[in-house]
Amino acid sequence: MLTGARGYLGQACMRLLTGKGHEVHAITRAEAPPRVPGAIWHHGDLLARGTGPSLARTIRPSHLLHLAWCTTHGHFWRDPDNLDWVGRSLELVRETAEQGGQRIVWAGSCAEYDWASPPPYREATTPLRPATLYGACKHAMATAMEAYLGQEQVDHGSGRIFFTFGPGEPATRLVPSVIRSLLAGRRPHLADGAKRRDFLYVDDVASALVALVEKPVLGAVNIGSGQAPTIREVAVAISRILEREDLVDCEAPTGRSDTPDVLVADTTRLREEVGWTPTYNLSMGLERTIEYWANEAHT
Amino acid sequence: MLTGARGYLGQACMRLLTGKGHEVHAITRAEAPPRVPGAIWHHGDLLARGTGPSLARTIRPSHLLHLAWCTTHGHFWRDPDNLDWVGRSLELVRETAEQGGQRIVWAGSCAEYDWASPPPYREATTPLRPATLYGACKHAMATAMEAYLGQEQVDHGSGRIFFTFGPGEPATRLVPSVIRSLLAGRRPHLADGAKRRDFLYVDDVASALVALVEKPVLGAVNIGSGQAPTIREVAVAISRILEREDLVDCEAPTGRSDTPDVLVADTTRLREEVGWTPTYNLSMGLERTIEYWANEAHT
Repeated sequence: MLTGARGYLGQACMRLLTGKGHEVHAITRAEAPPRVPGAIWHHGDLLARGTGPSLARTIRPSHLLHLAWCTTHGHFWRDPDNLDWVGRSLELVRETAEQGGQRIVWAGSCAEYDWASPPPYREATTPLRPATLYGACKHAMATAMEAYLGQEQVDHGSGRIFFTFGPGEPATRLVPSVIRSLLAGRRPHLADGAKRRDFLYVDDVASALVALVEKPVLGAVNIGSGQAPTIREVAVAISRILEREDLVDCEAPTGRSDTPDVLVADTTRLREEVGWTPTYNLSMGLERTIEYWANEAHT
Repeated sequence: MLTGARGYLGQACMRLLTGKGHEVHAITRAEAPPRVPGAIWHHGDLLARGTGPSLARTIRPSHLLHLAWCTTHGHFWRDPDNLDWVGRSLELVRETAEQGGQRIVWAGSCAEYDWASPPPYREATTPLRPATLYGACKHAMATAMEAYLGQEQVDHGSGRIFFTFGPGEPATRLVPSVIRSLLAGRRPHLADGAKRRDFLYVDDVASALVALVEKPVLGAVNIGSGQAPTIREVAVAISRILEREDLVDCEAPTGRSDTPDVLVADTTRLREEVGWTPTYNLSMGLERTIEYWANEAHT
């Protein structure tokens, strides 16, 4: 059972899971979801009370990959719907476990960590003290789920996802907005350009999540590259591929926000316990993303 | 608005709040709740999806004191309904805030703390790492609520309640079971008799919660006595009042459990910031509780 299957990360998970021959039961609010071989769509709004448990009773999944959450760019950090997603996620997971689910994996976040802690963030030792409503609600969900699934002896894990980019990412987010600016011959706006972020290409994030579904690793695992270029370095990398380095000013002053200077994952657990390493480096991921925006006229 | 109003702690809060002239809107599943001057009863099951928000829209309370939770003795530590109470509490609080609620206070628990930490527990410094599903879900609720109410600038606080006793406590819990054994001339069973627990008389717990509703103290405040007699010492104190010291064997071996040896509150915040001190010491509270069981033939 896959939730959040229509999101750009969910779509990548769907491709991988069906490609591996899994029978994927995906939930969507859309009336006419795309045909994907191996996918069985179920209609439902998981944010409506009772939908998740009802679908879990129908599907009785062996495995649950729960990605659905509020993700609207610029809004999700403070969206009161974060509260509702906690409750809906817990009722979904309870019913899945009661219906005999064997392993439950969900999308956690680097926003669960205490952003005042020194980087890189480690699952076992970095304190969890979220600074945002989004991070607090992801962490609240994890706290209750881990206690419940541990007690009921249902195998479970979560991927603490850092920064994701790739084809299909909403156009207003950092990487697409830089690509679209440069394609249009405009200077990109680089607020927080000096800050360092751990970016991982969406197909890699998806394949790490799928590895986490398949491998019985217990608890939270960081999903990131372990590298943290500055946001300006990411923009420069894009500008090199597009041969528009003239449009990225490496000395321009940048905006300031109260987010931390460096957000980067310690990926030891992902490498050594899940046995997973990335396929794409930053340049390869950026090339594919640029190709998507250049060829498909999404600008 | 008062939830959990029919519980023995809720009843004590109800008496205090109505006694102070507050208009109390209380929620109950009972068809015919008792008449209490100043109380307005609303019928509803808060564990049913959507009941809390619906009542919050009807009542539009200025203040919410949220006590309702699963509390069945011997069962509540592991009850899967703990998960549902997280979701129901969050939807209740969201709607209360959206309807203009000014201050929201809820019952937290000493089970939110890391029980491996050295006593006494302090709100600001003792780590929160619950060992039980109950504690994890209370903590999950607090994590999400504090982030949301902080963001929305709605005043809020929680009482981290330690051990409560008094008239009306369910008969199978420690203090009533010792009283009933001694009243019946039987030796009480004292599992964990050597363990130290912070007990506070129910009317004091209620008056601390009411003080917390009335005073704009932000965040979690321990509610306890700051004292931690052993469970055997509590039994001996009961036996002295009943003049049945012969039935409590001070040298008897006691059962063992994986709960901590000492659970005691640092009550500095309660005393200095809320400005509250207890009215009852342990003996006074026990005398009143014994009176209840002796006179009302509840045994």
